Amino acid sequence: MSTEIEITPKIALQTLRELLESGDNERLLQFIDDELYAADLAEYAYDLSTEENIQLLNILEDKMAVAVLKDMDNSLQEKILDEYDAETIAHRFIDWMDSDDAVDVLNQMNIETRDQVISYMTDMEASRNIVSLLHYREDVAGGLMAKEFIKVNINWTVSQCTDEIRSQAENVTKVYSTYVVDNQEKLLGVVSLKSIILANARTKVEKIYTDEVISVNTYTPAEEVAQMMRKYDMIVLPVVDTLGRLIGRITIDDVVDFIKEEADKDYQLMSGLAEDVEITDRVWILSRARLPWLLIGLLGGIASSRVIGLYEGELGAFPQMAFFMPLVAAMGGNAGVQSSAIIVQGLANNTLGSTNILPKLGKEFTVALLNGVICALIILGYNMIVGNSQELAFTVSIALLSAIVFASLLGTIIPLLLNKFQIDPAIATGPFITTTNDLLGLGIYFTIGAMLLG
Amino acid sequence: MSTEIEITPKIALQTLRELLESGDNERLLQFIDDELYAADLAEYAYDLSTEENIQLLNILEDKMAVAVLKDMDNSLQEKILDEYDAETIAHRFIDWMDSDDAVDVLNQMNIETRDQVISYMTDMEASRNIVSLLHYREDVAGGLMAKEFIKVNINWTVSQCTDEIRSQAENVTKVYSTYVVDNQEKLLGVVSLKSIILANARTKVEKIYTDEVISVNTYTPAEEVAQMMRKYDMIVLPVVDTLGRLIGRITIDDVVDFIKEEADKDYQLMSGLAEDVEITDRVWILSRARLPWLLIGLLGGIASSRVIGLYEGELGAFPQMAFFMPLVAAMGGNAGVQSSAIIVQGLANNTLGSTNILPKLGKEFTVALLNGVICALIILGYNMIVGNSQELAFTVSIALLSAIVFASLLGTIIPLLLNKFQIDPAIATGPFITTTNDLLGLGIYFTIGAMLLG
Repeated sequence: MSTEIEITPKIALQTLRELLESGDNERLLQFIDDELYAADLAEYAYDLSTEENIQLLNILEDKMAVAVLKDMDNSLQEKILDEYDAETIAHRFIDWMDSDDAVDVLNQMNIETRDQVISYMTDMEASRNIVSLLHYREDVAGGLMAKEFIKVNINWTVSQCTDEIRSQAENVTKVYSTYVVDNQEKLLGVVSLKSIILANARTKVEKIYTDEVISVNTYTPAEEVAQMMRKYDMIVLPVVDTLGRLIGRITIDDVVDFIKEEADKDYQLMSGLAEDVEITDRVWILSRARLPWLLIGLLGGIASSRVIGLYEGELGAFPQMAFFMPLVAAMGGNAGVQSSAIIVQGLANNTLGSTNILPKLGKEFTVALLNGVICALIILGYNMIVGNSQELAFTVSIALLSAIVFASLLGTIIPLLLNKFQIDPAIATGPFITTTNDLLGLGIYFTIGAMLLG
Repeated sequence: MSTEIEITPKIALQTLRELLESGDNERLLQFIDDELYAADLAEYAYDLSTEENIQLLNILEDKMAVAVLKDMDNSLQEKILDEYDAETIAHRFIDWMDSDDAVDVLNQMNIETRDQVISYMTDMEASRNIVSLLHYREDVAGGLMAKEFIKVNINWTVSQCTDEIRSQAENVTKVYSTYVVDNQEKLLGVVSLKSIILANARTKVEKIYTDEVISVNTYTPAEEVAQMMRKYDMIVLPVVDTLGRLIGRITIDDVVDFIKEEADKDYQLMSGLAEDVEITDRVWILSRARLPWLLIGLLGGIASSRVIGLYEGELGAFPQMAFFMPLVAAMGGNAGVQSSAIIVQGLANNTLGSTNILPKLGKEFTVALLNGVICALIILGYNMIVGNSQELAFTVSIALLSAIVFASLLGTIIPLLLNKFQIDPAIATGPFITTTNDLLGLGIYFTIGAMLLG
């Protein structure tokens, strides 16, 4: 493998396909060895058919096959594993996986298949580890952790540490630090590989370890784990039980994926998707993920039709009022989402500070007033130029200004309140609030219109 | 420091404030040492006044002060550094920072202050490193990398490696692997600390290193760097120049922050924010970030007023048509954003595959048709029940179905096209397309209305 990836994905995929079709396994393996990593193959798997993927996985050596499977997303893994029986899944995949990855894969199966697979596993200790991890929910530290780590006793010497690393070298592929425990397995600290290299073989661990170690409990929420690792720039985070005994570790690569998924979730919430869907999902899943927002929008639309209906008289007398309905409604919605988004991100990134709500509201009010006045003046100018009636012009501008200010204040208060009551504030940028703000704008418009035009 | 954080942020902040006010520096330092990490202090900094922050930074020892400053976001760093002169900034902060962090801080200063600070630096080599890093743009690998890493020659023995690690131990605090280069400094591979520990002191590096190393060039875009590190589960990524010589390394903690920032950007784009703003920013910056969308919305609103104006006659004859204008317009916008969001996330996560556009369009069409028919039937039922005219009921339902289908197709095609022309597809979820879809819905509504009602 050269130091850089030199082949374009398109050509790699084409070559892969051709070699798969030719049945020349030797050349195929050589090509993969020269040009591709497991993560690349996992990416190309979305373009290959299930048959091609199975053919490829069967040709690859165990470790590589496992690495490819592990890097696929859940729906693709499921499709592929459906084609194997439990014994093959155990010997070909689960036997070769780190415990956290194995649990991710097993969690997608129905319980019978899962138990069957585990019963076929070769290594008894590994299967016990996996069973113990299956107890944890996926969204807590216990559900993210792996059982593969290196721990040393505080009374050992450096040379005993080296022996332990040697004996575990097979199981623990990536070692960044070794954990220091006492005779009761309680986590005391950490000793870096660098210190082990630099210390004398007879030095006691006691002398070179640091007791500055941050750990989490098995029940710590995954979101908190991600925030901590990001905040404290950690590569690996030890997990302890309620007695403080070291029982697992979480690595940053799993957390990076989690951070990305969480950000994706906020994005989906804002775009009105109720589930994490991919274009490759089945039609009815895609439909189900989208219907909730569409139905809320529909309800909002019906509500707005009733609001407008209340003012049918005014509309009959001044039909031009209809012209600016969408404008006022949409602008209220827009301004509200902007305010909420700033608060939601501030909460997520812990940059809001914990001081009280009033100064924030004051600032939002000023910003909304400023932007509202600018927009109101522009639309006033427009209405004057095109020669619409003065009453209509003032109605539109005053309503626009009020809608922007009200929606901004609501957009600030609602996520802060949601957060106070431990509800995900990102909901505030979703369809429900947007629709409410649309309605609010419309209500303001007609109230002012009734006053000025009536 | 115990193995867990036991104090609530609220109490910690309060204690911090009280100890700062009391002027009892010894107790303050003891409290911080017992209970807090640098990243905690950086978080509390948002609640403290600038004076309190300065007081705190002046009390902390150099390394801790630097760690706190480094963890703050740019606007807060700027506020605080404004209170120091160039010489103090150099000796108190920059001298103690890794080159990549130093560059981040220096990049925020005006050029004169920056050059002054660099001229005051104590370590000539460190200042040369920083100057060389300042050449790179912030959004490429060169702008993310640090100069602190350990490299060993392929011809060395393990014991020579150990010596090198010892001599660099001061400069390179976190070591995960050492890079192997040839006599021309060309990157050949990597040797893990684990292999160094397990190998005999006289073993040649040649025997224990792996040549499977992924590297990037200085000009590789930061986004690609983040994708690679996430995809290949990397902790650290070496950076080479055009001759393949090793010149820096990027660590995952910087990339985690970058991934979060990129996700935030997509979120901001969708919520109609033109810049990365915080509620703590000044009013006019907050206003400036929001005006663009509001103005686009305003233009869209004016355009829709013209569209409606074209059908003033129909509206006069059937004023009830006005009732459902917001419904049809908003539903088109909603459906379009949903489609775009799925495509944008698929592109960002590389799960779309590279096959052609037609099957995706076909699927979108099916999903949109399904959801459109459901929504159209519901609104038809509603209109029948409340006793609206049959013509109006059919107009609304047909228009709604058409708007959902058209907007979904546009929402699929536009981000794919933008991506093809190397434009950020996330724009497709932003205000411009949403407004276009609103207008499209309105146009369809009146066209069908004119046919059925006229």
